[in-house]
Amino acid sequence: MIHHDGSALYVPDQNPRLGSTVDLWLRTAPGTTSVHVRSVEDGEPRFTEAVPSPRGNEIWWRAAVHVRNPVTRYRFLVDGDWYTATGRAGHDVPDATDFRLVTHPAPPPWTREAIVYQIFPDRFDRAGSAPAPDWAEPADWHEPVRHSSTQWYGGDLDGVTRHLDHIQDLGADTVYLTPFFPARSNHRYDAASFDHVDPLLGGDRALRRLADALHTRGMRLIGDLTTNHTGDTHPWFAGPLAEPDLYYTTPDGGFETWMGVPSLPKLNWGSPRLRERLVTAPDSVVKRWLRYLDGWRIDVANMTGRRGADDLTHTVSRLLAREIRAVRPDALLLAEHAHGAGGDLDVDGWQGTMNYAGFLRPLWTWLHGPSFDPPDFIGVPGGIPRRDGTAVVRTMRAVMATMSWRSWTHSWNLLGSHDTARIHTVTGDPARSEVAMGLLATLPGVPMLFAGDEFGLHGTNGELSRTPVPWGASPLRWYGDLLALRRKHAALRNGGLRFAHVDADRIVFWRETADDRMLVLAARAPGAPVPLPLPADATNLYGGASVPDALRGDGPTFQVWSVPA
Amino acid sequence: MIHHDGSALYVPDQNPRLGSTVDLWLRTAPGTTSVHVRSVEDGEPRFTEAVPSPRGNEIWWRAAVHVRNPVTRYRFLVDGDWYTATGRAGHDVPDATDFRLVTHPAPPPWTREAIVYQIFPDRFDRAGSAPAPDWAEPADWHEPVRHSSTQWYGGDLDGVTRHLDHIQDLGADTVYLTPFFPARSNHRYDAASFDHVDPLLGGDRALRRLADALHTRGMRLIGDLTTNHTGDTHPWFAGPLAEPDLYYTTPDGGFETWMGVPSLPKLNWGSPRLRERLVTAPDSVVKRWLRYLDGWRIDVANMTGRRGADDLTHTVSRLLAREIRAVRPDALLLAEHAHGAGGDLDVDGWQGTMNYAGFLRPLWTWLHGPSFDPPDFIGVPGGIPRRDGTAVVRTMRAVMATMSWRSWTHSWNLLGSHDTARIHTVTGDPARSEVAMGLLATLPGVPMLFAGDEFGLHGTNGELSRTPVPWGASPLRWYGDLLALRRKHAALRNGGLRFAHVDADRIVFWRETADDRMLVLAARAPGAPVPLPLPADATNLYGGASVPDALRGDGPTFQVWSVPA
Repeated sequence: MIHHDGSALYVPDQNPRLGSTVDLWLRTAPGTTSVHVRSVEDGEPRFTEAVPSPRGNEIWWRAAVHVRNPVTRYRFLVDGDWYTATGRAGHDVPDATDFRLVTHPAPPPWTREAIVYQIFPDRFDRAGSAPAPDWAEPADWHEPVRHSSTQWYGGDLDGVTRHLDHIQDLGADTVYLTPFFPARSNHRYDAASFDHVDPLLGGDRALRRLADALHTRGMRLIGDLTTNHTGDTHPWFAGPLAEPDLYYTTPDGGFETWMGVPSLPKLNWGSPRLRERLVTAPDSVVKRWLRYLDGWRIDVANMTGRRGADDLTHTVSRLLAREIRAVRPDALLLAEHAHGAGGDLDVDGWQGTMNYAGFLRPLWTWLHGPSFDPPDFIGVPGGIPRRDGTAVVRTMRAVMATMSWRSWTHSWNLLGSHDTARIHTVTGDPARSEVAMGLLATLPGVPMLFAGDEFGLHGTNGELSRTPVPWGASPLRWYGDLLALRRKHAALRNGGLRFAHVDADRIVFWRETADDRMLVLAARAPGAPVPLPLPADATNLYGGASVPDALRGDGPTFQVWSVPA
Repeated sequence: MIHHDGSALYVPDQNPRLGSTVDLWLRTAPGTTSVHVRSVEDGEPRFTEAVPSPRGNEIWWRAAVHVRNPVTRYRFLVDGDWYTATGRAGHDVPDATDFRLVTHPAPPPWTREAIVYQIFPDRFDRAGSAPAPDWAEPADWHEPVRHSSTQWYGGDLDGVTRHLDHIQDLGADTVYLTPFFPARSNHRYDAASFDHVDPLLGGDRALRRLADALHTRGMRLIGDLTTNHTGDTHPWFAGPLAEPDLYYTTPDGGFETWMGVPSLPKLNWGSPRLRERLVTAPDSVVKRWLRYLDGWRIDVANMTGRRGADDLTHTVSRLLAREIRAVRPDALLLAEHAHGAGGDLDVDGWQGTMNYAGFLRPLWTWLHGPSFDPPDFIGVPGGIPRRDGTAVVRTMRAVMATMSWRSWTHSWNLLGSHDTARIHTVTGDPARSEVAMGLLATLPGVPMLFAGDEFGLHGTNGELSRTPVPWGASPLRWYGDLLALRRKHAALRNGGLRFAHVDADRIVFWRETADDRMLVLAARAPGAPVPLPLPADATNLYGGASVPDALRGDGPTFQVWSVPA
């Protein structure tokens, strides 16, 4: 079956230099008679004839293509059809879905290997005994979560530090903290300062203790920065030292805010002083905290720098990338961008996005259970549609085709977050949750796990899913098992992705490197038996199905086999 | 059937202002229960509920949407499915194919109403008797065209001026001249100066005579400017006043050139002096000639400003648009961009493109005859694929979805040019040529006709199609008839486009305004009878088929009916 993706199997030079020439490989069916690569150089398409070349026991096609621009788009012409990142087309298609070679500096190598554990500090664990601040309504750890930004459980950073064994045992190596700056809410996205860690969380020293403990273990720590807005109690906005020129005003003399929420005034990236303070100064917010942090997740990156006629978002993301690289070349810069991130990636700015559009949404449409019936689908009116595996794969490929393989594989896949329902509530069925977690562990993209999921926590929306972690309970076995599988097999982290069989209830795919071949089967329900390309010497690594079993059509089930090359 | 496009039927405010709120209308099938518009504001999707609203005898859906950004993307959510510019999708799709509202200054009104007649001056008519220059090999007017840039027929601008009756009778109102600057080739894309009209063409005075004669008739004149390169005899490049900093050099000390052709050194738009001379100075090249011209067609716009790590093309197109607007707000700025122009449009630069990708190419795959079998498909290896009507419409919609309706309708549709084979050679059949010309006259987009096509001229590629016009012959009747039809009916120029029936051999569509409804049938071959949505009181305007006839399935045939609302 015809296939190409951006993995090393097909693009051996994973970090091409501008001006270099790289080999591109295409796998085709026997009987293919002609293959060309069409690449765009300085805006003009060029064609390079590919030659049949042996690859293992098969004949693939190879062409040497010039990497002329920072982003070089290419596609294949195969016996008169086009083959792009969305597949084969028997008609002309625009350049929009072409594959992409990118010469911008590569993200640090560890970032694609990471497994991220997301912590909402107020709800993780409480080690200290800070008194409740004036804005807070203190809650007991076992009290049900309400839809409120003032319900305060008092979790803190030492509460994180004391659970690193748990996090590491689970298989995660990177802790991502939602904001730790002082604020007037339990979520802290309304920063009242960027100068210190919230004393309620233990202050700067607690962050340092956490960072040191993580780094001692070879683990990493990611912060969360609101570049789109601050809280309205931030000294840049309110008080004697206020600098209103850092914010957008409105024609009526008020201030632009995030989504009309008055407590979240929007930052104006046209302001040189804002750029200096947040990014470019030697002790800028972004740089200063990289003494402890290994990178930033940028909140509301999709809106940052955008307002009416202004569109400075690429300027901001490039500025951040450049300045971060200057002080910490090994740091991560990841965007929250919950819909069409493609246009904002591959511009030497964000290294990836939180993959709601290409991962969480399609998986939810496939795996959600009948008992979960919210009024909207994370903001989209009308509830969650129930879709087939074919629709899931079509969506994944369509979103994947809007960005480079590099951006896709450095993005964070997720099944839920502090902004959504929890996956166990979505599926309503542990067997389907296991399938979801299986896909998180085996598809390209960095897995991000929302703390508490491993204990089977429930929550019907972003507010109510911020459940305090029930320490003392035992985590679900398969979380650790599946993440261990990913950690063990490079093919699951860096291999190519080739779909082998997709129907309404089953998604079967290969993850492959030159040395390692894994076949993954995810079934949300039983189905008719399906022939799988499994030789008798395949080894089951997860799910327990032997090779003849695999043909039976059980479900829900999640299976992984290692297949000798 | 569900439909929306950017025409006034669905977007009554065709030139929305930034910050305004506009109504968007969606036509749906009966039984639709829920419609929302999803628009992106400052990078964040918003949903607006649409309400069912009477429209004529039907119920349509209407929503008032905020025009927040210079380009506001939107799509519809219809009973759980997405509806974007490529159609209805039962799975999530990226923002790439969303519809677009654009608040950049609108192109001058006449530019969408135009019918363009392209003239390659050396081959149109020779009124004068200029002696052959040193580079030229003089040819007799009746001599066959060779593949040569020095074969010189001596056509000139007074040769154009004396045929304005012919051009106007044909229905065209805009003359587009390929370059008229001095050069050392018959095509003149290797400009030796931008200061004067080539004396071989009659010099500046001949251009003035032509412009005056056109303007007296209410007609217009478009020039052709090479912003990507000059000729190597241009005084900016060679001679005592050379300014090498206007050009790109290569690491080996040479000069970057267009596609490796040594006589075409590439201009460096990083140079402030280049910007000044070509664009911004009061007597810049671009401005000076707008005393006579009504706009510019920009040669190789897709490569202009692009070289390796440099991508200044949007900077250049915006600069040109701004400076042209300052001196001639009624002037056209159109890009040659023969593949994926979408990403370069709707940025307040080019007002449209030459629509090879979304018009010429798909039509050629549908209409080319067995006797035309070139080795490549205008640069794409492997000949011209033969494709069905469904593939044609899919390509048109896919390309259309990469740009705003405004950019699509201001782009120039074409069946051939000085850079391609002639349409009569492509089809090999007058009946299929008539179908092609019918589609040129009735689809959205400005028709551009290559001079000589109306005499049935042939030519197998871009060089050999530059055939001298055979004055004295009679033009094919249907050229004038079809263009007259377009000139008479606003629906054919500005109406919406809704496909009614598409199969392998037939493409049937509606062009509609609030006042005017036209049904168009294009058949490349006979087919099974197809029921058409034609009431008994429809009036045939072209092709001669009465309403019962239309159901018979004849072909090749081209038919147009007016249908009372």
